[in-house]
Amino acid sequence: MISHNREQRARLLVSCPDQPGIVAHISTLLFTHKANIVQSDQYSTDPENGTFFMRVEFEWNESDTSFEAIHHAFVSLAGVHSLQFKLERASRKKRMALFVSKENHCLSELLWKWKAGELVADIPLVISNHDDNRIEVESYGIPFFHIPSTKNNRKEAEEEALTLLREHRIELVVLARYMQILTPNFVSAYPYKIINIHHSFLPAFIGANPYAKAFERGVKLIGATAHYVTDDLDEGPIIEQDIMRVNHRHTASDLRIAGRNIERIALARAVSWHLNDQLLVHGNKTIVF
Amino acid sequence: MISHNREQRARLLVSCPDQPGIVAHISTLLFTHKANIVQSDQYSTDPENGTFFMRVEFEWNESDTSFEAIHHAFVSLAGVHSLQFKLERASRKKRMALFVSKENHCLSELLWKWKAGELVADIPLVISNHDDNRIEVESYGIPFFHIPSTKNNRKEAEEEALTLLREHRIELVVLARYMQILTPNFVSAYPYKIINIHHSFLPAFIGANPYAKAFERGVKLIGATAHYVTDDLDEGPIIEQDIMRVNHRHTASDLRIAGRNIERIALARAVSWHLNDQLLVHGNKTIVF
Amino acid sequence: MISHNREQRARLLVSCPDQPGIVAHISTLLFTHKANIVQSDQYSTDPENGTFFMRVEFEWNESDTSFEAIHHAFVSLAGVHSLQFKLERASRKKRMALFVSKENHCLSELLWKWKAGELVADIPLVISNHDDNRIEVESYGIPFFHIPSTKNNRKEAEEEALTLLREHRIELVVLARYMQILTPNFVSAYPYKIINIHHSFLPAFIGANPYAKAFERGVKLIGATAHYVTDDLDEGPIIEQDIMRVNHRHTASDLRIAGRNIERIALARAVSWHLNDQLLVHGNKTIVF
Amino acid sequence: MISHNREQRARLLVSCPDQPGIVAHISTLLFTHKANIVQSDQYSTDPENGTFFMRVEFEWNESDTSFEAIHHAFVSLAGVHSLQFKLERASRKKRMALFVSKENHCLSELLWKWKAGELVADIPLVISNHDDNRIEVESYGIPFFHIPSTKNNRKEAEEEALTLLREHRIELVVLARYMQILTPNFVSAYPYKIINIHHSFLPAFIGANPYAKAFERGVKLIGATAHYVTDDLDEGPIIEQDIMRVNHRHTASDLRIAGRNIERIALARAVSWHLNDQLLVHGNKTIVF
Repeated sequence: MISHNREQRARLLVSCPDQPGIVAHISTLLFTHKANIVQSDQYSTDPENGTFFMRVEFEWNESDTSFEAIHHAFVSLAGVHSLQFKLERASRKKRMALFVSKENHCLSELLWKWKAGELVADIPLVISNHDDNRIEVESYGIPFFHIPSTKNNRKEAEEEALTLLREHRIELVVLARYMQILTPNFVSAYPYKIINIHHSFLPAFIGANPYAKAFERGVKLIGATAHYVTDDLDEGPIIEQDIMRVNHRHTASDLRIAGRNIERIALARAVSWHLNDQLLVHGNKTIVF
Repeated sequence: MISHNREQRARLLVSCPDQPGIVAHISTLLFTHKANIVQSDQYSTDPENGTFFMRVEFEWNESDTSFEAIHHAFVSLAGVHSLQFKLERASRKKRMALFVSKENHCLSELLWKWKAGELVADIPLVISNHDDNRIEVESYGIPFFHIPSTKNNRKEAEEEALTLLREHRIELVVLARYMQILTPNFVSAYPYKIINIHHSFLPAFIGANPYAKAFERGVKLIGATAHYVTDDLDEGPIIEQDIMRVNHRHTASDLRIAGRNIERIALARAVSWHLNDQLLVHGNKTIVF
Repeated sequence: MISHNREQRARLLVSCPDQPGIVAHISTLLFTHKANIVQSDQYSTDPENGTFFMRVEFEWNESDTSFEAIHHAFVSLAGVHSLQFKLERASRKKRMALFVSKENHCLSELLWKWKAGELVADIPLVISNHDDNRIEVESYGIPFFHIPSTKNNRKEAEEEALTLLREHRIELVVLARYMQILTPNFVSAYPYKIINIHHSFLPAFIGANPYAKAFERGVKLIGATAHYVTDDLDEGPIIEQDIMRVNHRHTASDLRIAGRNIERIALARAVSWHLNDQLLVHGNKTIVF
Repeated sequence: MISHNREQRARLLVSCPDQPGIVAHISTLLFTHKANIVQSDQYSTDPENGTFFMRVEFEWNESDTSFEAIHHAFVSLAGVHSLQFKLERASRKKRMALFVSKENHCLSELLWKWKAGELVADIPLVISNHDDNRIEVESYGIPFFHIPSTKNNRKEAEEEALTLLREHRIELVVLARYMQILTPNFVSAYPYKIINIHHSFLPAFIGANPYAKAFERGVKLIGATAHYVTDDLDEGPIIEQDIMRVNHRHTASDLRIAGRNIERIALARAVSWHLNDQLLVHGNKTIVF
């Protein structure tokens, strides 16, 4: 977690069929470009015929080698070994949009952590189907767009939002308690780039009103789940989960209030990992490096 | 948690329609019998027309009043106020039977805590559908009964077990990873007196092979749930739950091994609470005092 | 945790030498005033010659009995049984002042929870030895007072703060990361009414720079401790503690940043318990009901 | 955590001054020996002039290359780059001795996990200054040595233990609640090869009777710390810590009983990491891979 001069630090994410020599090829490539590996994680679903995943943070001197040269070298390597890779300067901030409805606990957490420097991103806009959180958002100097969404205008509302996202070149959409279901059209525009917070310990209590269901079932722990959004409601790859202890004294309303504390924490962690290029998706699961 | 002379300590569990004066009546009854309330918990589902639950630990001097006299006084009070109550000497050990299949982690935990004095009970017998754990059980001086259970003899096997339980006047049955589903006939003989440990965070992953399902879903936490057994599989009142963090490196087999640590802890806590008269059932939920 | 009509709910805190009949006397007093006990907790340090503590939440009908009448009855009871008691309408909001220096994570948490209704209090003012957090505080409509504090003016600065507190009839002072040591003069004005958050798992790492010390020692968990302030630095009664897992990758700076998440949570819980009259002090310990 | 054929899996631990190319050299060496990296972790205290640590698990075919050939290649590499390394077949079991006094909770946990296959080691003997746990130890088929230790014979007792350890070629000594302080003579014979469990959250409550001190201080969490033993009592490198929540109702004795649950868990984790070559010591800290 040491950072030094972020200008010259980069992050590499790799996935490919597992095969001998991958680490050697990648680390030798970096060494020949005078880059120093600062952190490295890897995982293979199965050393025999599995899929290999790797994340490398490295530092280099722009005076020795250009970022473009390193990138070019990886393109060549990828061709030979069927690698899929993503190479990012650590200094480049991703462009993130927040979606929110009325409840602001997740929104406030993300904005506070963003301002405190814990979430490194640009936030060009916040979109909401209600106007409630305008003042808070604008106090951070972030444009707030109110796009009401009803049964009748859902398609138009989504189009309006998509247009805004495109205009602002958004790379990550965070549903910070946005109580609307997105259409496949929207989801397909941001594959594994939409993070939602579900207010239960998935796969328990899928769908609406999970706290009411948790109360009904008499659970002793409640949970929250941050996941990538796919077309299957609440079925996308889980990124992070957290729980808290509750007891018989908690009403359904108490559960909802208490749960806010884990929702905001689980979501903030998931967003942070995505922004730091710590997440890879494999099938319907995430690998968190 | 101070104990002193357990011979003269008692535990009272009460449930009744909520009504003014309940606490006054109970505490005055105890005072007039020169009993001293040492600990007291109460809960009402709703002060207006709800159900009231109370647990009291008190100490008394047998030279002042007999236990029977106090019990008699509560019978009278119960008649007037529609109380249901249970009054137990703290010194009286409940008679508990353990059921186990092959895996011994929950069994070992319960036996160790029993010997260490953390679980205060008599254990007249252990019943298993396999012979694997005989030596361990017998090393504690506890009789071990091997009752094989197959598709064809399930009914006879259950009858054999029930006979043993009756002979040993068993009051609590603990399924310490007993991989057999009990019939309604068996369950009805021990209403809210059978505790099972399910190896998932219920209601997620009901039924068989929860760790395989958890692996498939890619959860970031695994759980265990101790619950009273009812006729609905894995749907009985939850007593205790616990979780542990896992990650993408855990295979289904790793989850199973790791999960043993939370299964045994959640089950031991649930059993301890039952033995200490800390549990009340309300609808399909437990109240843990 | 059910609230209904808060106007007619009250909270009673009692401490006295343990003696038979206390619960009977108190519950009978409430019953004769047609009050209904909604929640009740009690604790005795020792049933023989110990100290007894009790917290009762009850509801009553103002049309049946006035609050004053109930209070008056408790004054009489207290005289007979050497009770110390505090009786509060649940609807009465305590007047709380927040002190902060530059770092705003605890301040933001408290303000957010206050606005969300999780902390029920009036906040007449925030006092800081820096001007950094003025805009945030004023955005909540709360007056912000900047009282610079240096080696030379500490006494005057404290007097200025005390005057403000008196003018605003403050009942609880929360040091939300206020990096100044208060003098005995200040502390004695608010006995067990000043809550501080210390950024370590006390009694480990007393004093300045606990995260640097934690880094140096190589701990695997870091902690935060909310406690009442006494004249002995970091030695007052502990109200709440929380921890989080860290590892060898965390620099001292990482620990500081990560620790903010547990500091704000532990402090918010402690403040909430104080505001809800859930705290009693016994010697140098707290009883949390 | 996939294991396959452990016979052909090895673990490499490396530490050296951080320098460009380390990862490339190591991974290329493995690749040229047809070894496949299965898992890899690395850490640098500082990319500039810091110390670099690495752990690699790899698989190879004995038919392609012998273990000795790979080892020989690392010896050569180590000479060139000032590496310190340890290379171990995963299939080789370390020889571990357990020391215990009267309380058996840590002993039982380790023996149970050993028998269940969670701790992979040979346990040639258990040494105790009391005879209490002989039957349990011998029931696992492990020789039990009772070496009474008094003020007068401490030196002789230690010599007797050291002789036994040497005779049994012990590589790891685990103090599973062994209530004796070892002399520097003993400690120096097993540098960073003695693991102790201290029954507090170090550095809080160093020395004797930590639960009594924790009770006195009124903490809300109690802890346990597994650490390597050095000559400074309770000051050695921390390997693992864990905590549990307690409250005002816990007497000092309750804390001691409750604490057993975290002591055994923290110790078992630390021992497991040592046995799996997951631990490196740097100064007075551990790196846990």
